[in-house]
Amino acid sequence: MHSVRTAVVGASGYSGQELLHYLARHPVFRLTLVTSRQQAGEPLSKHVQGLPREVGALTFVDAAPDAKLAEAADLFFLALPHGAAAPYAVALRKAGKTVIDLSADFRTSDPAIYQEFYGHPHPAQDLLAQAVYGLPELHRERLKTAQLVASPGCFPTSIILPLAPFLRQHLLAPGSISITSLSGVSGAGRKLELRLLFGEVNDNMYAYGAPKHRHLGEIEQELSLAAGEKITVTFVPHLVPMHRGMLSTITTTLLEPKSEAELQTILEQAYADEPFVEIVPAPAFPEAREVAHSNRIRIGLRVDARTNRLILFSAIDNLGKGAASQAIQAANVACGLPEQAGL
Amino acid sequence: MHSVRTAVVGASGYSGQELLHYLARHPVFRLTLVTSRQQAGEPLSKHVQGLPREVGALTFVDAAPDAKLAEAADLFFLALPHGAAAPYAVALRKAGKTVIDLSADFRTSDPAIYQEFYGHPHPAQDLLAQAVYGLPELHRERLKTAQLVASPGCFPTSIILPLAPFLRQHLLAPGSISITSLSGVSGAGRKLELRLLFGEVNDNMYAYGAPKHRHLGEIEQELSLAAGEKITVTFVPHLVPMHRGMLSTITTTLLEPKSEAELQTILEQAYADEPFVEIVPAPAFPEAREVAHSNRIRIGLRVDARTNRLILFSAIDNLGKGAASQAIQAANVACGLPEQAGL
Amino acid sequence: MHSVRTAVVGASGYSGQELLHYLARHPVFRLTLVTSRQQAGEPLSKHVQGLPREVGALTFVDAAPDAKLAEAADLFFLALPHGAAAPYAVALRKAGKTVIDLSADFRTSDPAIYQEFYGHPHPAQDLLAQAVYGLPELHRERLKTAQLVASPGCFPTSIILPLAPFLRQHLLAPGSISITSLSGVSGAGRKLELRLLFGEVNDNMYAYGAPKHRHLGEIEQELSLAAGEKITVTFVPHLVPMHRGMLSTITTTLLEPKSEAELQTILEQAYADEPFVEIVPAPAFPEAREVAHSNRIRIGLRVDARTNRLILFSAIDNLGKGAASQAIQAANVACGLPEQAGL
Amino acid sequence: MHSVRTAVVGASGYSGQELLHYLARHPVFRLTLVTSRQQAGEPLSKHVQGLPREVGALTFVDAAPDAKLAEAADLFFLALPHGAAAPYAVALRKAGKTVIDLSADFRTSDPAIYQEFYGHPHPAQDLLAQAVYGLPELHRERLKTAQLVASPGCFPTSIILPLAPFLRQHLLAPGSISITSLSGVSGAGRKLELRLLFGEVNDNMYAYGAPKHRHLGEIEQELSLAAGEKITVTFVPHLVPMHRGMLSTITTTLLEPKSEAELQTILEQAYADEPFVEIVPAPAFPEAREVAHSNRIRIGLRVDARTNRLILFSAIDNLGKGAASQAIQAANVACGLPEQAGL
Repeated sequence: MHSVRTAVVGASGYSGQELLHYLARHPVFRLTLVTSRQQAGEPLSKHVQGLPREVGALTFVDAAPDAKLAEAADLFFLALPHGAAAPYAVALRKAGKTVIDLSADFRTSDPAIYQEFYGHPHPAQDLLAQAVYGLPELHRERLKTAQLVASPGCFPTSIILPLAPFLRQHLLAPGSISITSLSGVSGAGRKLELRLLFGEVNDNMYAYGAPKHRHLGEIEQELSLAAGEKITVTFVPHLVPMHRGMLSTITTTLLEPKSEAELQTILEQAYADEPFVEIVPAPAFPEAREVAHSNRIRIGLRVDARTNRLILFSAIDNLGKGAASQAIQAANVACGLPEQAGL
Repeated sequence: MHSVRTAVVGASGYSGQELLHYLARHPVFRLTLVTSRQQAGEPLSKHVQGLPREVGALTFVDAAPDAKLAEAADLFFLALPHGAAAPYAVALRKAGKTVIDLSADFRTSDPAIYQEFYGHPHPAQDLLAQAVYGLPELHRERLKTAQLVASPGCFPTSIILPLAPFLRQHLLAPGSISITSLSGVSGAGRKLELRLLFGEVNDNMYAYGAPKHRHLGEIEQELSLAAGEKITVTFVPHLVPMHRGMLSTITTTLLEPKSEAELQTILEQAYADEPFVEIVPAPAFPEAREVAHSNRIRIGLRVDARTNRLILFSAIDNLGKGAASQAIQAANVACGLPEQAGL
Repeated sequence: MHSVRTAVVGASGYSGQELLHYLARHPVFRLTLVTSRQQAGEPLSKHVQGLPREVGALTFVDAAPDAKLAEAADLFFLALPHGAAAPYAVALRKAGKTVIDLSADFRTSDPAIYQEFYGHPHPAQDLLAQAVYGLPELHRERLKTAQLVASPGCFPTSIILPLAPFLRQHLLAPGSISITSLSGVSGAGRKLELRLLFGEVNDNMYAYGAPKHRHLGEIEQELSLAAGEKITVTFVPHLVPMHRGMLSTITTTLLEPKSEAELQTILEQAYADEPFVEIVPAPAFPEAREVAHSNRIRIGLRVDARTNRLILFSAIDNLGKGAASQAIQAANVACGLPEQAGL
Repeated sequence: MHSVRTAVVGASGYSGQELLHYLARHPVFRLTLVTSRQQAGEPLSKHVQGLPREVGALTFVDAAPDAKLAEAADLFFLALPHGAAAPYAVALRKAGKTVIDLSADFRTSDPAIYQEFYGHPHPAQDLLAQAVYGLPELHRERLKTAQLVASPGCFPTSIILPLAPFLRQHLLAPGSISITSLSGVSGAGRKLELRLLFGEVNDNMYAYGAPKHRHLGEIEQELSLAAGEKITVTFVPHLVPMHRGMLSTITTTLLEPKSEAELQTILEQAYADEPFVEIVPAPAFPEAREVAHSNRIRIGLRVDARTNRLILFSAIDNLGKGAASQAIQAANVACGLPEQAGL
């Protein structure tokens, strides 16, 4: 199979570095360009260890969003901060290139929702119609022809996959969903902020971003899509003292009582053919460590018969299925490759 | 003021060690006996660092629950595993001694609830009537004359204090309470279990014990008492990779819409005179680190106007306000001392 | 290429689990048997996550060291505690099988040294002569025909590789070597010991095992071999609060002053063709994180001109180049495969 | 006893915050001024939790080094970055105030050594003669009348105290000292540097600063003073993934063989009357956790008879005996108070 010339735009953050690790070993995607403003002019091997020698020898470049950049590759992963990705997507799509955007810029199809959660008008509304939400387990068919993929956030991934099968079957009381998510610190990015210092994070934990975290827009968009009606949820993210990992615990009321066995069967059937979804039977619970450095999500459930609630549990690697490896999974679909290639 | 001869029964666990640290500096309680089966015959200073020299020179003894033990002190803290405390309480109460029990043995006043959550009949039903639940913020008056104090669990403390003011005023939809708690590993005790090894806990996290954790009995007992009606909740504890610390996030539906300001005022008024309760105004959230090594609880709140939910947040040190220092606070009340003595 | 039927004996520890991860993806070694006393009868997937489905479906068995075991595979990795491996090696060698032993049982070629450091006579002296110390960078030729490989310990690997080039050229004062090593906790194994609990390791560190740690025997054996004379060193291991990782810092006196550039060239030339050895030029120092989950060792150096000392630094993953992946590297050599196969 | 009006200049770093915790409970020192450029205008309680209410209500101010500042207190602790303290010391000494400087500005009595290690001329040479190195165990008599105390660094404290008794008795080969120190991250300060992010520190460790770390000047000054001759050492600091804690391991050659018992007796006699020095007998080793949140140092030793080396081990809290509490200990001496006051 021919190789695909591949670029990573913005590779100095944690998601960008994780992408490099996956791409360096991908059987088809071949790195031809890696950009980073801070590290421009330096070899990849100075900042990222463990890459094959020829990949480590590549030099970071600082590249503007223009036609010249577009010539350097045919497949572009954008690992830029929210807001910074849109101009790159515009330039690259204009040149006909395939774009996998790991930022939030194209995740909400309704520009009004973008404005509500990000506080300013969407910077590239013309592209929204062609963007496909990059969750292959839900949107595989549309991804097969996508040229602009909006790769999902880590919180949404860990929340949408457990809930979707039950929403599709209308088993849940619509207003009853309450979500607690625990995130490793890498989810906050590789930024110079006091709160991200080891001395502030170690031996500490706290909730943040409630009640209206920026990811809520895409969470409710996808849940509503699955349910066929507007779903509104309560979502409380937490920071916990670990680098990578994400755990979501979701409580929701069952419209009619069901047994754990029945509900587990629904999950198992929904994801029977999915290579990256694992259903964890009781008495075990999904653990963050079990999915570290992987593209897998593990999902478990319990029924609280005393309150008629279904409790869902999920674990992902926020840098893997929550970011880098999920982007590659979607790119595999978009490029017609085996979905597990390089994963 | 005269000193009170004080014993710690079972001081080799994390709560017991924490008790020693507080008691070693208490102005009135004077350690005369410290028991530990494993460490019997060895000086305290071998296992617990940083004690004043004369306290460190005490020797751990192995003591049966009998009249001889009762002679060694007038105030007894029991830091024993659940189930192991009851026979000591029986022997010591028979001798007229004051007992502060850190186990769950006397926390649920209804023996049926004990049996439901612990799976066997209560081992000392005759004593249940005299046991007072050791949360001074709720039961101060009864504690003043208590001779058997059932010191609350860490999860219940972090959950009951934020909810009680709102339940008393009947502001919450009774069936709407859903609780997520994050616990440092010391909450599981100092036991030889594979899951407690550093290699299993570090870089890991998971839910456990849902939907019917043993602490649920005392949580619902106290919430129902505050509400004046039966309260049933969903409770999901989680383990996170830190040693000490506990965070609870509680979502519940408001019967009528209220503003954050109104609800914060209710909290502030409820705890205005409490030396160990701190209300955290937005935009801050309570952090585990802020209460480490202390008897304080920090409580915050948010209103999710989109779903009409109140979200409560609390942080305690599970070994402090969740165990050792809370037991001393209750003992201070029971002994007629200033409530902050030694804390 | 034909596959090689491969067994892991003792796969419930951290090294054994790490072996499974590497072997599950090895292009030639094909897992046909995995033993574990504690987990016998259970599928691998219950205890080890992220294995390919067909490997996860294998069942742990409890196997005695006998001819029946020998039939199950042609290549055996022994990941057993020190002392427990020898009887398996005897049985398997008797059946003509290739054995890669990750324990210390065959690392010291002189049985007197074994007795000195392990306190009892060597349990299988007859096999010592055929055992080859499994450090390919030093013993590649002998490993090509080895049928019993004594895979090195993590401390020795991190110490021998930095020192050997300088000892071979007789640049160091023989009695001047002093070594400090920092080890992640997984080096102590997956054992039920109080000191290995998260609550005892987190936020803690200490030296241990000095002055006569068990690994000292094999360290001095290999250093002496490189130097062509008896080398005696001071070695102080430390435990630090992380799971995987090992850092060694070695100070030694130069017989004659040399510049950092000269000494770095000696290192670079010694390991120019080694795929797993990386020389780190100043001002950088080797970091534990850079080699995590890999078979690489990173080595750096500084000259302390004020004291005429050479300071060597090395970083490995104690479960990788310090255990599992190094064992596979040696097995590749012994089986005539490309040395990087599966690594 | 009258209270002493006390100021902390520069209280937004880790040492400054630690000072506030100790001073808030000191029986004599009464906080009247706390400065911080970043947090000026905000109450202490916003940034430092757990302070008594009246202390938490104080407001951070931004204060220049002038006569007005000097009026605010009689005792000044300077917790400023190296180089920033000198102008404050000049202004405050001019006004006759007692100054305890936690920076390195006055630790080396020879300005040439300052210039060698800090790369620029000493900013206040006139004051050097009156500065006393604030290690009460070595300089108690001079500290009694000191008005400018140069509080020692954390590395020097952990190194000088174990070595001094042996150097005084001329038991060590002068050129033989090699030191490895492991430091928690708080030692690097509360600075916005990428390398201090949780994501860079967690699960990582590395050496740094060798062979000529800035603390080497004061280490060799004090060791030489104890030995009565010029002592030159090799010193290699390391960063390990924990917040507070410091461990030093020192190897040195004995001029004549001595037993562990003899050498331990020398240590015990040297520090028999010291309230903050604890000698740890074998088989135990000093552990970082044992001295956390305290002013104690724990020291142990081993003899490596095979190489005739003495190995010394020490553990301190780098924010306690390595910074804040040590400064208070010295201030107690300088103010004629009981040395353990508030500690």
